[in-house]
Amino acid sequence: MSKKNSVQVLINGKVTTLTGYESEEYLERVASYLNKKQQEIKTSANWRRMTDYMKGTMLALNIADDLYKARERAEGLEDELKSKDRELYDLKQELVDLQLELESLKKKR
Amino acid sequence: MSKKNSVQVLINGKVTTLTGYESEEYLERVASYLNKKQQEIKTSANWRRMTDYMKGTMLALNIADDLYKARERAEGLEDELKSKDRELYDLKQELVDLQLELESLKKKR
Repeated sequence: MSKKNSVQVLINGKVTTLTGYESEEYLERVASYLNKKQQEIKTSANWRRMTDYMKGTMLALNIADDLYKARERAEGLEDELKSKDRELYDLKQELVDLQLELESLKKKR
Repeated sequence: MSKKNSVQVLINGKVTTLTGYESEEYLERVASYLNKKQQEIKTSANWRRMTDYMKGTMLALNIADDLYKARERAEGLEDELKSKDRELYDLKQELVDLQLELESLKKKR
């Protein structure tokens, strides 16, 4: 089992300790992303009038939105990969056919 | 510009109105994901002793973790796509070479 890492980061201006089996670099990257998101939604017109619950929900929703966009991108890439695989299969088939034709022509000479 | 959709969903047991240019189905999917995550982290041993700030941070961190895993998956798929593209390029080249060889053999007969 890999070693558990712990790293102190600033989230929403508060020092928070993140602990996980991921690398310190990964934990820092996640924290930095959270800070960026927090800054983004703070510019929202209604921010000052929001309750803590609403602020928390808004942050979670914004991150989930990024997540769904990333998943959609991954799904699109998977479809693209499948189509490339089919293209590769067809090309390999075509290549084998040509090689056989070539062999038979060479033998006849 | 597409129409703005609004959908009432339950987030953390509270009725919350989500508004966005995304489809209602998308907004409901995001809300259902958030509820699932919330349920997951509620099973954490420290949940009852956490302040609201800590609970919010934990939810955000967990979603961000899913996001980073999704992005890593997308990056891996992109690398795979690039390697398939190179393979396709090489195969096409090989195919052209074989076709030329075949044509020249046929002409000599």
